[in-house]
Amino acid sequence: MTNKINATIITIGDELLIGQTIDTNSAFIARVLNKAGIGVQYRIAVGDIWEDIWNTLDDALNNNNLVIITGGLGPTNDDITKKLLCSYFNSTLVIDAAVLEHITNIFTIRNRPEMALLERNIQQAAVPDNCTVIKNEMGTAPGMWFDTTNNKGEPAVVVALPGVPFEMIHIFNNELLPKIVASFKLNSYLHRTLLLAGAGESQIAEHLVPFEAALPATMKLAYLPESGLIKLRLSGTPNTIEENAEYENQYISLKQYVSEWLISDENEKIENVIATLLLSKKLTMGTAESCTGGKIAHLLTLIPGSSEWYKGSVISYANSVKNHLLHVPETILAEHGAVSEATAIAMAKGAVAALDTDVAIAVTGIAGPGGGSTQKPVGTVWMAAAGKNNVITRLIHMRYDRATNINNTATQALLLLRSFITTAQTY
Amino acid sequence: MTNKINATIITIGDELLIGQTIDTNSAFIARVLNKAGIGVQYRIAVGDIWEDIWNTLDDALNNNNLVIITGGLGPTNDDITKKLLCSYFNSTLVIDAAVLEHITNIFTIRNRPEMALLERNIQQAAVPDNCTVIKNEMGTAPGMWFDTTNNKGEPAVVVALPGVPFEMIHIFNNELLPKIVASFKLNSYLHRTLLLAGAGESQIAEHLVPFEAALPATMKLAYLPESGLIKLRLSGTPNTIEENAEYENQYISLKQYVSEWLISDENEKIENVIATLLLSKKLTMGTAESCTGGKIAHLLTLIPGSSEWYKGSVISYANSVKNHLLHVPETILAEHGAVSEATAIAMAKGAVAALDTDVAIAVTGIAGPGGGSTQKPVGTVWMAAAGKNNVITRLIHMRYDRATNINNTATQALLLLRSFITTAQTY
Repeated sequence: MTNKINATIITIGDELLIGQTIDTNSAFIARVLNKAGIGVQYRIAVGDIWEDIWNTLDDALNNNNLVIITGGLGPTNDDITKKLLCSYFNSTLVIDAAVLEHITNIFTIRNRPEMALLERNIQQAAVPDNCTVIKNEMGTAPGMWFDTTNNKGEPAVVVALPGVPFEMIHIFNNELLPKIVASFKLNSYLHRTLLLAGAGESQIAEHLVPFEAALPATMKLAYLPESGLIKLRLSGTPNTIEENAEYENQYISLKQYVSEWLISDENEKIENVIATLLLSKKLTMGTAESCTGGKIAHLLTLIPGSSEWYKGSVISYANSVKNHLLHVPETILAEHGAVSEATAIAMAKGAVAALDTDVAIAVTGIAGPGGGSTQKPVGTVWMAAAGKNNVITRLIHMRYDRATNINNTATQALLLLRSFITTAQTY
Repeated sequence: MTNKINATIITIGDELLIGQTIDTNSAFIARVLNKAGIGVQYRIAVGDIWEDIWNTLDDALNNNNLVIITGGLGPTNDDITKKLLCSYFNSTLVIDAAVLEHITNIFTIRNRPEMALLERNIQQAAVPDNCTVIKNEMGTAPGMWFDTTNNKGEPAVVVALPGVPFEMIHIFNNELLPKIVASFKLNSYLHRTLLLAGAGESQIAEHLVPFEAALPATMKLAYLPESGLIKLRLSGTPNTIEENAEYENQYISLKQYVSEWLISDENEKIENVIATLLLSKKLTMGTAESCTGGKIAHLLTLIPGSSEWYKGSVISYANSVKNHLLHVPETILAEHGAVSEATAIAMAKGAVAALDTDVAIAVTGIAGPGGGSTQKPVGTVWMAAAGKNNVITRLIHMRYDRATNINNTATQALLLLRSFITTAQTY
């Protein structure tokens, strides 16, 4: 097949066009395809409408070689993708024996009366007779692979996958990707991402004016602000040893340029930076959260194996919990208030003691939209990072909506912990 | 303007096509437009590539009346949307005095050395001379509104907004939406959503065969599985009093059909159902989370005003925390293990006591990918809902990836608490 492979991702479902569902599937697919060396030209969401799906597929096959379709394969009447593809590729639906056996097994294992095998479930084993079935171990709707040609006369592939995210991801990683890699001759796409903190996007861009001016036209630099941090991405498509060396040189130069703000040279999240740091220093941690309400604990415990270094948290929404479980003295709460440096310090030290950890972070603030006052407006947050002997604090002012305030505060608290661990002599 | 308004949403940025960023903006925009009576025909993500953006805009203006573009308005070189629109609409960039004043104010307020006002920030106040500026109170890049005509000769509007979600949302709600509503004569779109639990998608569909068979062709029923629940959406576009009455009748009939599984007749999340229930019964709650690691607390505290009924949580990742803070007896942990019904009960009762609440839920399990054994494989989760006097428990088996297991477990725990509150005589 051709060397430069372009893909279109089509996600199907009215829920995407009325905004009921956020499309996480196409981000995943784009990431995996890119890594494999396939550029994604368009991501298109379209409703459960025959004509719109048909036209979008037609357009995608104008000059792309790979079209990935997700959604519309369920057992209910609003799902029309399979019928449409059957018609588009002039084929007939036939029951696939292996798929039927798999579906029967799933319903037998579940063994729940409300999950009895119905005719509409059996029909999920029906596939167009000219497609290759792609196994779906996690669910009942199989994937389908159609070999065809695009309008430029090049070989092209159309793949349909179920839209349920964990099913789609499992199929993609285990069944589809190996088949794609085996079917196309692929270019290499390189993306390296640096994680920066402590400067605004404009300031970093200003600092990088000479770097960008000298950057070869084959490479691209992108700025991605995210939860109060800046991601900097250098992209290239090196195809020779010389081009590869040039990319590496530019990458090293970029790292030197931004070294004072550099948190990580991996495309990772701040919680993963913390995990690596704690593991390398053999430290355990805990959290005491008020206004972030468990967000920091959730971010940390999403990391597999976090139980090695994360022991727990006290979410002290009520003052009584701050006092009873974290032993924040009532006098501090009364004199300084729940949102104060003194309370943050007492919470962090209380967490180290109560959770029996080496270090802890504590956050107390007003996430909004209510709860503010003139002295302490919505968005006021005190945070502390502490060990048994030392503590550092920080005051920040958030000015966004509740969810954004919670997210950004979690990021800043993890950055404070990173500072504490990397700069304190003892904890 | 015309009565039937169709929109295309174009999101711009290489990060969307390499899968580095999940596009939440277009879901928000679609939701708000739909509510206002504007159908979204396509949502398209395109890279920072002049030709692709240009062609996508051209296509959208083939037959749509409204094109919303987000992204690519930042101060750095990878942002090309403004230049492109300036060229597309044959205009010249001019500095807008009001925008410049606003940008200057932001940088003055921040008063941080790393945030000095730079020439590239001043250039953010430059806008095409034939657009109407849309104020961005939250950031430095203003929105732009262009009046034009589409290829059918109908009046059309192209709007460009910054891609940073909270900025975009603020502009949309406060500045753009009123302007859109004032500019178009709009149809009404109705979507009502029911939240169901306790049955699979197929079983519900089977039960609804007669309902779907009798549904007028102008209405649509959609099934949306989400975190272990099923959302059922009835859509229609009633334009007369009779059509409106027919829609209401179908909606009432649908509710009766699915009454045994009905959790809520609002398009809301299970945590909002819990919030309403607790407020109406004047109860306070707490959580004791092991494998969900703060996810339940986070979901609950995302709700504004949750401090009225939510007091806190103990995230007891380590057994020592289960023992010290929740007072789970060491004998129970030793005899039954951390993942057991006895531990779940002790955690829930311990949470009620330690957090001083009316009710509490506790969750203990193995989220994976590691930590499983033959007796207790990955995905085994015990949960309990308790008050001072009563307790109910449930064992579930999750079979997905870590993040999905955590999400679905949180949903099931909240459902268990709902059962406890609605069925127990005393707590």
